[in-house]
Formats: sequence, structure tokens, C-alpha cells
Amino acid sequence: MDFAPDDIARDYTDRARIFLDEHVLPAESVLDEQLAATPDEWGTRAIVRDLQRRAQERSLWNLFLPGEGGAGLTNLQYAPVAEVTGWSPRLAPAAFNCAAPDTGNMEVLHDFGTVEQQEKWLKPLLRAEIRSSFCMTEPDVASSDATNIGTRIRRDGDSYVISGRKWWSTGAMNPDAAIFIVMGKTDPDADRHRQQSMILVPRDTPGVEIVRPLSVFGYDDRDHGGHAEVAFHDVRVPVADLIGEEGSGFAIAQARLGPGRIHHCMRALGMGERALALMVARANSRQAFGRSLADQGVIREWVAEARITLESLRLLVLKTAWLMDTVGNRAAMTEIQSIKIAVPRAVQTIIDRAIQVHGAAGVSSDTPLPELYAGIRSLRIADGPDEVHLAGLGRAELRR
Amino acid sequence: MDFAPDDIARDYTDRARIFLDEHVLPAESVLDEQLAATPDEWGTRAIVRDLQRRAQERSLWNLFLPGEGGAGLTNLQYAPVAEVTGWSPRLAPAAFNCAAPDTGNMEVLHDFGTVEQQEKWLKPLLRAEIRSSFCMTEPDVASSDATNIGTRIRRDGDSYVISGRKWWSTGAMNPDAAIFIVMGKTDPDADRHRQQSMILVPRDTPGVEIVRPLSVFGYDDRDHGGHAEVAFHDVRVPVADLIGEEGSGFAIAQARLGPGRIHHCMRALGMGERALALMVARANSRQAFGRSLADQGVIREWVAEARITLESLRLLVLKTAWLMDTVGNRAAMTEIQSIKIAVPRAVQTIIDRAIQVHGAAGVSSDTPLPELYAGIRSLRIADGPDEVHLAGLGRAELRR
Amino acid sequence: MDFAPDDIARDYTDRARIFLDEHVLPAESVLDEQLAATPDEWGTRAIVRDLQRRAQERSLWNLFLPGEGGAGLTNLQYAPVAEVTGWSPRLAPAAFNCAAPDTGNMEVLHDFGTVEQQEKWLKPLLRAEIRSSFCMTEPDVASSDATNIGTRIRRDGDSYVISGRKWWSTGAMNPDAAIFIVMGKTDPDADRHRQQSMILVPRDTPGVEIVRPLSVFGYDDRDHGGHAEVAFHDVRVPVADLIGEEGSGFAIAQARLGPGRIHHCMRALGMGERALALMVARANSRQAFGRSLADQGVIREWVAEARITLESLRLLVLKTAWLMDTVGNRAAMTEIQSIKIAVPRAVQTIIDRAIQVHGAAGVSSDTPLPELYAGIRSLRIADGPDEVHLAGLGRAELRR
Amino acid sequence: MDFAPDDIARDYTDRARIFLDEHVLPAESVLDEQLAATPDEWGTRAIVRDLQRRAQERSLWNLFLPGEGGAGLTNLQYAPVAEVTGWSPRLAPAAFNCAAPDTGNMEVLHDFGTVEQQEKWLKPLLRAEIRSSFCMTEPDVASSDATNIGTRIRRDGDSYVISGRKWWSTGAMNPDAAIFIVMGKTDPDADRHRQQSMILVPRDTPGVEIVRPLSVFGYDDRDHGGHAEVAFHDVRVPVADLIGEEGSGFAIAQARLGPGRIHHCMRALGMGERALALMVARANSRQAFGRSLADQGVIREWVAEARITLESLRLLVLKTAWLMDTVGNRAAMTEIQSIKIAVPRAVQTIIDRAIQVHGAAGVSSDTPLPELYAGIRSLRIADGPDEVHLAGLGRAELRR
Repeated sequence: MDFAPDDIARDYTDRARIFLDEHVLPAESVLDEQLAATPDEWGTRAIVRDLQRRAQERSLWNLFLPGEGGAGLTNLQYAPVAEVTGWSPRLAPAAFNCAAPDTGNMEVLHDFGTVEQQEKWLKPLLRAEIRSSFCMTEPDVASSDATNIGTRIRRDGDSYVISGRKWWSTGAMNPDAAIFIVMGKTDPDADRHRQQSMILVPRDTPGVEIVRPLSVFGYDDRDHGGHAEVAFHDVRVPVADLIGEEGSGFAIAQARLGPGRIHHCMRALGMGERALALMVARANSRQAFGRSLADQGVIREWVAEARITLESLRLLVLKTAWLMDTVGNRAAMTEIQSIKIAVPRAVQTIIDRAIQVHGAAGVSSDTPLPELYAGIRSLRIADGPDEVHLAGLGRAELRR
Repeated sequence: MDFAPDDIARDYTDRARIFLDEHVLPAESVLDEQLAATPDEWGTRAIVRDLQRRAQERSLWNLFLPGEGGAGLTNLQYAPVAEVTGWSPRLAPAAFNCAAPDTGNMEVLHDFGTVEQQEKWLKPLLRAEIRSSFCMTEPDVASSDATNIGTRIRRDGDSYVISGRKWWSTGAMNPDAAIFIVMGKTDPDADRHRQQSMILVPRDTPGVEIVRPLSVFGYDDRDHGGHAEVAFHDVRVPVADLIGEEGSGFAIAQARLGPGRIHHCMRALGMGERALALMVARANSRQAFGRSLADQGVIREWVAEARITLESLRLLVLKTAWLMDTVGNRAAMTEIQSIKIAVPRAVQTIIDRAIQVHGAAGVSSDTPLPELYAGIRSLRIADGPDEVHLAGLGRAELRR
Repeated sequence: MDFAPDDIARDYTDRARIFLDEHVLPAESVLDEQLAATPDEWGTRAIVRDLQRRAQERSLWNLFLPGEGGAGLTNLQYAPVAEVTGWSPRLAPAAFNCAAPDTGNMEVLHDFGTVEQQEKWLKPLLRAEIRSSFCMTEPDVASSDATNIGTRIRRDGDSYVISGRKWWSTGAMNPDAAIFIVMGKTDPDADRHRQQSMILVPRDTPGVEIVRPLSVFGYDDRDHGGHAEVAFHDVRVPVADLIGEEGSGFAIAQARLGPGRIHHCMRALGMGERALALMVARANSRQAFGRSLADQGVIREWVAEARITLESLRLLVLKTAWLMDTVGNRAAMTEIQSIKIAVPRAVQTIIDRAIQVHGAAGVSSDTPLPELYAGIRSLRIADGPDEVHLAGLGRAELRR
Repeated sequence: MDFAPDDIARDYTDRARIFLDEHVLPAESVLDEQLAATPDEWGTRAIVRDLQRRAQERSLWNLFLPGEGGAGLTNLQYAPVAEVTGWSPRLAPAAFNCAAPDTGNMEVLHDFGTVEQQEKWLKPLLRAEIRSSFCMTEPDVASSDATNIGTRIRRDGDSYVISGRKWWSTGAMNPDAAIFIVMGKTDPDADRHRQQSMILVPRDTPGVEIVRPLSVFGYDDRDHGGHAEVAFHDVRVPVADLIGEEGSGFAIAQARLGPGRIHHCMRALGMGERALALMVARANSRQAFGRSLADQGVIREWVAEARITLESLRLLVLKTAWLMDTVGNRAAMTEIQSIKIAVPRAVQTIIDRAIQVHGAAGVSSDTPLPELYAGIRSLRIADGPDEVHLAGLGRAELRR
């Protein structure tokens, strides 16, 4: 239960921080320009590819992936590095090839994919030659309850035929997203958690329809491929594209979600730190009624509260990472749920207050705050809304 | 202190409600289409003009303006009508010609304008032939402290020369916004509250530069003319364009802000009611884990809390309106500050929870919720941040 | 919906306020002395009888009771008077003979009692010659669910025989509490809300055992008769002592609870006003780090928030009173639930902050704050915990 | 930064837990009986001495004191042991001779006392033969600002003469409290933090007057010697009774407060755990409206929130302990302030909710909850109110 970064973690974190300061933060305005110049495109922008090249040269690459294939970091080692990337969520995770949903998809392929599947899709993803999407949430049902899933995957000879409708398929608007991992039901009559399977669907398979982009608050998240509604009209793929065996979809999803959730929380801490840094800078630089904002009202208290919250939740994230490393993701479920609930909402409050300290600038694109806000707000819904996790955690505690 | 709507108020409210249901709510998707079809335009869309025509036919017009010129409603009579317009803040206020910042600008012209100024600008505004903007907030200073204002208005012969930079000039991106009311300093050495003046600046005056649009949580608010940064480069207007006398700017601003703040609060209640209605509908229609959302978890509590909050704050808004009608805006200052603080943040919580109940749909444009959220969040900053009002209110209470 | 106090209400309120300032507040230390001098007694102290005499002389008496028998005030008229009594909850309600549980018990006798019952018990209660207790809550069950009640009332010839155990029988430690109203089941097999009946049990009936006093935080509430656990061991009373008919107990309880809840809320507002007044006085008089407390930190915000909350909730209480007067208690149920939930918890926060502003003095008996806190905290549980009301209110809103 | 308990910590914690379960918790009702039997006495009760004897036999003794003299535990090792004692704050700390204010006083004597002072007062304290009190807070000033202190310590030949008035001298009502450490000003004209000195005053010195006991939410805390107001009327002691040198009082107080604050937080976590355990047990055992409380409403969420909060704040306390052990109390000041602010208020919420789940029983002495509440509430004021620490922490963060 030693949370201090070891030499490896410290080295990566220091280098990631330097890279952030020297390359990523200055690139944010470049990204804005490139996005403004090509308002109708969804593809990876040049500045992202440029940063990726520079990061790869510095071995700041695939840090999320434990074991061979990735950088070999433990969760505990990865945590402070991921936090650094949270300072610039539009650019830093992508720069290091550590951006969702590719990370989760690579993990699925790494842990459950066949050699052929890994050769065809994992390798180019690890090199960032392609991107990917994860098609799980559906528009018509409460998707936090996996039994609600309506998409069907039917065996037909040597093929599976997929039909259904997904949305919030993050990254799918990007034409570079060459491969989709789709969750659907192979056997609606099986046990509750054996009904679902996951299958690989190449983007260009006939019957795949990218219906429309979705927005988050007013942001289309065009920088990293947006979020799509995707229809699957009797899409036919070879049986070899199934991941794992029939009925293993729920288990794979659970395996995928644990790391995904903690990665979100690690980055969220960085988002919170950036908001706090912005709040401090603003409070120190603005004058009203003859005094610095830092010297009046409740801002001092907000700053103090933010510091306390970030410190205590960072420790909880680190403990969770340590547990995942030592006793496994399943045994760490209570802690994963805890941080999934606690971190995003705490960071939401910090960002909201940072906005308030900035006045009208705070809601505009002159600061990264409203886009950070939109991102963190979504995390309270993504991968299951807070309330589902609170209920689960409460039930577990009541039964101990 | 009788808050029940009288016959006049009831009549207007009933008709406004019918108009909302029959004309405005169905027009929301039409507006979306018209906006999507002309992404580079900032002007008033056809559907708005169409609704305005229909509303005018029904005498649902200029309801905000007390006395002659407007509909002659008291604040107490106007309150429930304005609340109805809050259900569709993008369309209903404009449809009734009761949208900020035109309302405040018309009030200023009505109360402080010369006959010539009224003839030239107030009359076309009352007919919605033109729109207007209010240029007060500045990018470089904490504008809640009026002594911070940097824009200068210098007398030069028969002219005033205006130089400075404003932002959050709502509506100014709309080419129909023919007239700007600009706040600046005529005498930086005068007493604290006698330094400022207000002046009329026609949009097409040489030296007026519309620098750029600003966004609110990703929304450009293109539907009602957005928010502009505006530079005034030695802009010269005749002395007759000054509103009131030199040094009266602060007093006019205060006079303008009282009604403006309560109007915002009235509409905010309607926004809260709509969010609650959406929350209830969603909770009743969605199933998860075998039960309706309405039957589980904390949603029932959220619904109850929303109802309690809306009821109690509506009464406080009505009392404030009644005080403004009976003892005047100045004597109602404590109450105006109270609702300015309490209503937007309460409605923010309700909308946030409505988002949560909607899951991923809640942050997307498939519901009006995120745009309502962006709007209400801005209200906690507009017309002075909550904290400035809390401090003022606290000081007054401590000195009673 | 006119909430302004009319002439009658204003007259009573003004006189009650004067009485409070001149007689009640100065008597608080006298009560403390009399309590300290007789630590083992539970009876009404001399200062209370003295205040009652003075109040009765001034016709500040039985103000709670609508119609003949009482002062004839409407709920709306009574509200501001009751608020005044909340400033000194240990003394003022008793001084005016408006203290729970006597008020509720007198209402029950007034509305549902036979002439004989009224002659024997209501009249001496109205003259404050005796006091009373209400025995409903039971130690072993969640009493907010009336079907849980375990006490039995069995018909046996011309008698009813009562057996069971009650607690939180407020006032019952006082030997002056001559009559108990007991809720029990006459028919456990009847419909859910027809199982219960209420019956009169004189204190000195054989089988009545005052088991022990209960404390609220560290207070035994000895000043007004405390709270007792009471056992009924086959207690036999004549059939004429039944109130109403068999099976009407739940309905009578509901009828009793509406006024009881709003009276609690009215007084709670007065408790909140007193806490705010104490907070203001303290903040203005204390210095730390070279400045008055009023000039630093968050105290100004607390004061402002308290003012906003008290204003808005007072209006909701007045609206509820007005509804009870005009459409009846049943039709006002949503509003009664709303204030039952909202007022005590809001006042709890105000008192808690007032404590904090007082530092260590705030938790001691040198201020009335901790005892006010204990009282208001209990209100969130008494007459049904907040959560039961929130759930009920939410359900109603979801079904509208 | 390894927070896992080592072998020594685990051994002590396990034995402390067993002792708690087997000896302390069953002794709580015995203490109640002994207190009820001797309502006018303030001395240490027999059950406490009995527990002390048993604890001493098991070497569960003086665990708080680092280095020789105590058990030699680091702060990190002591933390989980102290948490165990928080489950029964009235008995367990005293049983292990680890109760405030003796702990802080022993630390002062250990770190700053002369050999003679240690011989005379520290040794009997370490054997629990006597108890002690710390006289710092004053009734007339905001004592969080040490320059406000009014007590004077004047040199007069070979004596110091002390005059002033203190209150909240915890333990001082207990006649066993043989020695008082008194903070006063030796030089009001010195630098801000060099004005104060600390001096030993034996209880029986002429001029020491125990004025009265103080209560906390109705509790007199008679079990551990209560809280006294103490007057010092020209109390004369030899110069050898000064602790350290003249002007060192503020520095000694700061040195004393660091450990004192973290000890409070460690115990507070145990109080929170006990409240959570009681909440869970109650929710699982009570039925209402046909279902267990655990299956309805918000209780599940409360339980989950409590678990998350306790986990994250425990980690922050452990990190603070680790910092104190490794870089010293001064360098850990930010963390000490953080836990001083965050832990008591979080535990206050948990206890408040546990009360709510218990219904009326929750505010009575049938559960330990209201007394736990009174204790934790006081911690938000003791050793400086939250707001002073928040402001300090915020200032530091704003200046980083």
C-alpha cells in the first residue's frame, strides 16, 4: 500500500509533465485553429498526428497498457502519468495514444482477442494508424442494465448477422475509426449475464450506417471523432470476428470497464488540478472593489476545498490502482465504484467554481473550463450513472 | 400582498400557455432546422418572425413594459406570463417581443430617452422591426464593480467620441441589432457612481467593430443574435445620443437591472418547470432492472425537492414583483438580490438532475436540457456574480 | 392568496412580540434557575404559570384554536403569532397555552370529542389547569407506518382494555399531564387505515406505568414535561372514553397532524430568526485577526443565505396556511408536506451556522442555540421522518 | 508513503479491537449506571479505573506518545489504534491513557518540560495517577487569534503571578486533574507570536477558582471531567513552573496542536465507522411499508456515501501521519489543516444520517449517536474553527 511513485512512475510522470508544458498546452490553440479551418471534417487533425509523432519518439506511448505490448506500467505507475494527460483532455491522451475508447478496445483485443484479431486490429491501433469505437449504449433503453440491450447478433452459417441501433459510439464520426467493437445479444434466453457477446465490425462492412453526430452540451467533440449514432442493418461478418465465445460479452464488458473507469478518474484529477490552477491564477490577477479577488469573499474557501478534495480523492484513486495491481479488478470493485462516483462530481464542483471565478469568460471558449465541464459532467453518466453505482455500493455495504 | 393572479394576469397567462403549447413548442424543431440550414448567418430566423406575427395578432406583445407603450401589466401581472416564456427561452421571449436585452433597452429608452430617441429607436423596437444590444461588460476587468469600466466617452464639440472594448454584448452578432446602448466613463474623476454615462451608438457608425462571437458552453446562441465582442475605435456620435445627462449612467444601469433581474428569475422558474416536467416524463417512461425509474433510487426525492424549491422561490419572486409594484425597485433591492441569487442556482440543480435522469440523452441536443443548463449557468454570472450579491445582501442584513 | 397580516393578525402579532420582549425573554434565565433549583421535578415551573397568568390577562391565549373555544384566528392569522413564540420555544408557546402536544390534543377533543369528553378534559386544558400527552409512537416499530402499531385496544363489555408500549409521549413526565390520548388497534384485520382507534386514558388509571424519561441530545426537556416511555398493562377504561368511533384513529391522527405540522413550521421560522439575530449580533461584536467577524470569511454569506431561506420558506408556510383556511387541510397536503420537509432542515442549517459563529459558546448553555438545535433536529423525525414525506411528495408529483 | 499497517501497528490494532469488543463496549452501560448513581460527582468513575488496569496489563497504554516514555509508535502506527478508540470516545481513550487533554499535556511536558517538571507531573500522568487540564481558550475573545489572549503572567521576584479567566478547560471539573497548563501573556508588547508563555499551575494553588461546568448540547461530559470555566485570581507559582522560556507559548501551542488535531481525526474516523455500523444494523432490522429500510429510499445512498467518505479521508489522515513522521509536523501543516477541516464535518454528516435512520431513538440516549454528534460538532470549533483553517489553507494555496 505504498502510493509514492517509484522510479519508473516518477520518470514517466516527469517526462509527461514536461511534454505537456512544452508541446501539448501550446498546441491547444493550434488545434482550435485547425478545427475552425475545417468545420466539416471529423478526421484526426494534423496537430494530433504531430504530437503523436513527438510523443512516440520520447517513448510516451501506449502507457495505459499493462504487460507486453504497452509500456508495461502497473495501474499505480500509470496513475500520475494519466493525471498529467487530464490537464489537456482534448490533446494529451491522444498524443500518448492513451485515449478512450481506443484504450479499452485495445485492452479487449489484448486480453480476449485471437492472434488473428490482434494482428489485424490491435497492432495498427497500438501504432495509432487507425482508431476505433465501442458500440454498447443504445438510444431506446437504460443501458446501465445490460439485459435491456436490444441489438441482436445472430449466427447464420459461417457468419454472424448484427442488427440494432447504438449511440454514443465515441470516435465513430472519425473516418479513421476503422473498427467497431459491438455488444449485442446472441442468446436473449440465456442467464442474465450470458446473453451478450462482443463482435468486431469493420467500419466499411455493408449495412453499417453512421446516422448522425451527437453533441455534449454544445460541443461536438470533433477533435477526437465525436460521438455517433450508428445503425447496424443486418450487418454480416465472419464468425471469426466474435471476441471470445458466445455469451462472454458481459464478462468482457466488466473487464473492460474497470480500467476504463479508473483511467477516467485519473484524468479527472488532472482536469481538477487544471481548473484549480486557473482559479488561483484568476483570483490573484483580478481586482474588484479595490482588492484582489483572492482577498475577498468565498474564493479562498473554494480554493482550500478544492485542494482538500483533490488530495483525498487522489489517494483513493491510488489505493484503487494498487488494489487492482495486487488483488485484481474484481476484488477492487468497491473502490472502483467509489472513485467512479466521487471523483467526477467533485471535479465538476471545482470546475463550476473556477467558472464562477472567471465571470463571463468562464463560460466561453476563452478558457478551457466549459469544455472541461461538459466532459466531466458526462462522466457522471458514462459507464453507468452515479446512482446505479451508489445503489450497488450501498447494497454491498449493507450486506457485509 | 395578494399573489394570486388577477383576471388580467390569468387571461394573459392562459393565452400565453396555449400559444406556447400550440405554436412555440412545435416550432423548436423548426428553429433547429432553420439554424442547421444557415450555419453562417446570425440574423433573426423566419420562424421567429412568424411566431412574432402570430403573437402580435393575439396581443401577446411587449408584455414586459409597464405603463403605456407596453401591455400595461404590473410586475405581479407579468410574472406568470414571463414564467410561461421560460419554457422555451430560445423562442417564446422573442415571439412575444419580451426578450433580453431588448426589454431592458426599451425600458431605458422609455424611462430616460428623449422624444427623439424614442421616436427613432424605441418605436421600431416595440414593433420588433429592429433589435438592439447592451454594451456594458468589458473583457479586461471585473465589471461587477462599475468603477472598473475602461471605455471612455469624451465630449468633443457637438459630438461624443467613444473608445473602448466590450464583450458579452448579447444580440450584437445579429445584423438586425441596429442600435447599441454603450456604458462608458465621461468623468473618471467624479464620484464613484457619477463617472459613468450611457450613450446610443447606431450599429453602422464608423469605428464600430464586431470583433467575434462568444460561446456559452459550446453554444453560440445564434438563434437570438449570439454574444459579441465589440470594439469602439474613436466612434463619434452627436451629443443628442447621450441618454439622460452625463454621470447618470450608473443610476440608469441600476434602474435597468432591477426589472432585468426579476424577468430572468421569472423565466428561470419556467425553465425549472420544464426540466421538472421532462424529468417526470422520463422517470415514468424508462425501465431499468425491472422497474420504472420513478420507483427506484433517489429520483423520487429529486422530484419532490424540485417541487418544493420551485414553489417557495416562485412565492419569493411574486413578493418581489409586488414590492416593485408597490414600493418601488429601490425599496425592493434586498428581495431582487435574493431571487437573483436563489432562483438560478436552484434551477441549475433541477436541470442538472433532469439531465442525470435522462442519461446520455440528457447532455445531447435531443433534449433542451443542456442548452437550458448553459443558459441558467450564465445567469449566475450575468448582472453580477452571485457572490457579489450575497456579500451585499449579507452586509445589509448585518447592518439592520 | 393575500399573505399580508390583516388588522387582527397584526394586532395579535404586535402584542405577542411585545410580550415576548418584555416578559418571555427575560424569563428564560428565571426558568433556568428554577430548573436548577429542583432538578428532580417534572412539574410545570412557577415562572411558566406566572407567564400564563400574564398572557391570559392580555388575551394572548389559546390562539392556535380556530373557531369558538379558541381565539378564532385563521391559520393565516395565527402564523405570524406562532412565529413569535418560536423565539423562545421553552416558554412562549406554554405561556400562550399554545404548546404541543396540548394544542393537538385540544383540537382532537374539539373536533371529535363528545360533549362529556370536552367538559371533562377540553375545558381544563383550555384553562391550562391540566396538561396532556399524546401516545402514538412505539419503541419497537417504524411508527411512520401506522399499520406497524402494536398497541391493542380490546372491547370487553362496557370497557376497552389497552395493552402496549409507547414512547416519546411528550409532556407525560409532568404530573400535571392528567390525560393521555392513546392510539392503538381495535381491529388488526380491518382495512389498512381502519384498524386504529384513539382513546382517552386518564393518567391515574391502574396499569398506566411511566417507565422512564427520554432525552433529546443531552436535554431532558424537563421544562415542559419531557418525553416519556409509557407502558399500558391491561389498562381498563369505559367505552365512553373512545374518541370518535372504532377504526377512526388513523383519520383523526391525520386531521391532528396537519395543523400540528404547520404550527411546528411557524415556530421553526421564529427559531431561525432568533438564531440569525444571534449570529448577526455575534458577528458584529467579535474581533479576530484585527477585524470584526462580520467583515471576514463566509459569515456574510451565511447571513445572506439565512435571510433568503427564511423569506422564501415563510411565504411557503403562509401559502400553506391560506390553503388550509380556504380549501382545507386535505387539499393542502402537498404544501404541508413541503414545509414539513423544508423548514426544519433549513432552520437546522441556520442554527448550526449560528453555533459556528459563536465558537465554543455556541455549543454551551450560555446561548439558546444548542437547545434550539436539538429541538429543530427532532422535528425532522417527529410526525414522520423527512424521507417518508419526500417519498410521498415525489410520488404525488410523478403521478400528476 | 506506504500506508499499510506494519506488524507492530497490526498487532496493537488487533489487540485494541479485541479489547474494545470484549471490555470497552460492554462497559458503556456500566458507565451509564455509575454516572446515574453519582450525579453530583465529577471524578473518574470506577469502571474507567478498572478498564485502565486491564488495558495496562495488556500494554495497551500511552500508545499516543512517540519515542521513549510512551509505546514508541509512529503517528502512522498509532493511527489505526486511535481509530479503534473512537468507537467509544467516552471510555476507550481514557482506558488506554490516550485521552485529551492529557495526551497533549504529556507531550508538552515530554518535549518542553524540565526534568523536575517531568518527574513531578509527567510520570504520574503516564501512570494515570492524576489527570490534567489545558487552559487556553478565554470566554471574552476569539481565541483562535492568539494575540487576543487576555490572561497575564507577570514576573514578580521568584514567582509568576497569573490573572485571567479561561473556559473550556476540559477535564478541570475532575478533582483528579491535579495540574493545569495555562497559556497567558508574559509580554503583550513583544512580537505577535512571542507574547505568550505557558506555565504549570497546580490545581490547589491559592487563587485558582473552578467557576462552573459548561455543557455541550446538554451533555456535561461528566464522565471525563467535563469542561470548566476557571478563574485565576493573582495566582502565584514559582518561576520554575514556567514551561520553556518566556515568549515560547505560541510555539509550544502550535507543537501541541498538530498531534492533537490528528488524534482527534483518527478517533473521529472510528466515530464515523461506529455510526455507519449502527446505520447499517438499523436499516437491516427495521421494516416500514412492507420492506426493510435498507431496501428503500435514500438510505442505501447514505451508506454508500459514508463508505466513500470514510475511505478517502482515512487515506488523507494516514498520509498526514506519514508526513508528520517523515518530514515533521510543520511541513505537514497543510495536510493537518485539511483533515482538521474535512474529517469532523464529514463524520458529522454520517452521524446525522445515522440519527435519521434511527428515528426518534436516534436523538435519545438509547443510542450513542447524539452524544457522538455533540462531540464531533464541537471538534469543528475546538483548536480553531473550520473557517480559520479554510482561510489559512486557501491563502497558502493561492500563494504557492
